[in-house]
Amino acid sequence: MKLFKKIAIIGVGLIGGSIGLAVKKKRLAGEVVGVSRRESSRKKALKFKAVDTATLDFEKGIQDADLVILAVPVGNILSLARKAVKHMKKGAILTDVGSSKENIVPEAEKVAGKKANFIGSHPMAGSDKRSVMNASHGIFNNAPLILTKTKYTDPRSLRKLKTFWRMLGCRVFIISPEKHDKLASLASYLPHVVSFMLALSQTKDSVRFAAGSLKDTTRVASSDPELWKGIFLLSGRRVLDSIGTFTKNLKLLEKAIKRKDEKSVKKFLEKAKKIRDSIKT
Amino acid sequence: MKLFKKIAIIGVGLIGGSIGLAVKKKRLAGEVVGVSRRESSRKKALKFKAVDTATLDFEKGIQDADLVILAVPVGNILSLARKAVKHMKKGAILTDVGSSKENIVPEAEKVAGKKANFIGSHPMAGSDKRSVMNASHGIFNNAPLILTKTKYTDPRSLRKLKTFWRMLGCRVFIISPEKHDKLASLASYLPHVVSFMLALSQTKDSVRFAAGSLKDTTRVASSDPELWKGIFLLSGRRVLDSIGTFTKNLKLLEKAIKRKDEKSVKKFLEKAKKIRDSIKT
Repeated sequence: MKLFKKIAIIGVGLIGGSIGLAVKKKRLAGEVVGVSRRESSRKKALKFKAVDTATLDFEKGIQDADLVILAVPVGNILSLARKAVKHMKKGAILTDVGSSKENIVPEAEKVAGKKANFIGSHPMAGSDKRSVMNASHGIFNNAPLILTKTKYTDPRSLRKLKTFWRMLGCRVFIISPEKHDKLASLASYLPHVVSFMLALSQTKDSVRFAAGSLKDTTRVASSDPELWKGIFLLSGRRVLDSIGTFTKNLKLLEKAIKRKDEKSVKKFLEKAKKIRDSIKT
Repeated sequence: MKLFKKIAIIGVGLIGGSIGLAVKKKRLAGEVVGVSRRESSRKKALKFKAVDTATLDFEKGIQDADLVILAVPVGNILSLARKAVKHMKKGAILTDVGSSKENIVPEAEKVAGKKANFIGSHPMAGSDKRSVMNASHGIFNNAPLILTKTKYTDPRSLRKLKTFWRMLGCRVFIISPEKHDKLASLASYLPHVVSFMLALSQTKDSVRFAAGSLKDTTRVASSDPELWKGIFLLSGRRVLDSIGTFTKNLKLLEKAIKRKDEKSVKKFLEKAKKIRDSIKT
């Protein structure tokens, strides 16, 4: 039996398209509908077989869907959630794939009310690429995925959504929206902040000497500025917190270098290496 | 005809070993001798065929070599240069592969005196790995390589060394030691500083959610702390300069996020992306 009769994916870019491809590959749904305003996106999604059908018609796309996935930038989630709930089947699951949760989930739960069951999803499987043309069913393999749980979360929907993401290959963690943003600020927002600013610090001359270190550390600075502007502003407080933590560490290293304190410099680098080595690649 | 009759490589780790492999693959030398204090390194270098012979005997290893390459951490270059020059053939070329130049090259030139011709080399082809076991002849393919030129540089030796690195696959740039350190501080020291401090800012909890962004930005934080401590202290002023540039940019972004200035945040990210996209991968 299929996990869902019909899944509607709103926004068929990199993540939306990859979900479509993975759902179809694993045969988790009777039907996958892609909803997008842009004709070019709908055409590409169909061409890449990321969806069974693609439509501009929000109402038609969402009608009868058991699962509606908002695969859009964080700035558009709430307005599209409002629009989606109107047309959703009672009791269906509504989720998103955004990187910010504490400023989205409580509002989205209110919007869903008693009609739909909203649960936030965050597959940590992004890329600096956009567009369904870079989509792949494989990006979820072993990717961490966070589901948000609050006192309003419907347990049955949570179980079903957990099964869904697991079948797509994700390692699912269930935590509160606040906990999510706190962890994401260190594991995702901060690496992006630092990567963008590292790229911004380069000169025309210096990039000619770019080797592995500069290439790797700035890879995600190629990410979509509009998308990340949205996350940095929506989760401003958390982003500033993580910048604070980073700046504190950088200041300590700076001071140690200034006073030629070999022992401290080495201690910082050794501790950093130990943490990095603990991350599975 | 071979480019060199005999090449002596002092230190057969990742870079030294890779040079040996590449020289042997391209048949650039009649003989490649590896010199290392550690028996295990000598054994591994022989096993991986990175050298033709390996010896503990500095004098014997260097004797009659046309090219002596100091493939050791920056902190050991000057003392080993002093030791090497004593046993070198008159007129032979002495080079290093270190990441710091302005505090090494003038001293090394003095040490070489009229006996040997010292030229600094910096192949920007490192890795977070050490040891000859990770060595590969391919790491020089298309890698930027800087040769230092000063008023004391012997033109014939410079031409020969340029040919050597080019035949190994490097894109060779010839600049002054000062220019090198200025560029390396942005293209190499700063990415390492930032990567180490980004890793140091993580918690046990946050690393469980490490996705591509954190993994890529912190990859070089797995590098050898001893090696990078040496570079950060030897090139302290340059490292502090680049940290200053980075901190200034970070402060600007921080302030823009604080005042919810969407336009400025987007402008910073767009500019950063443009710079990153200009780097060939």
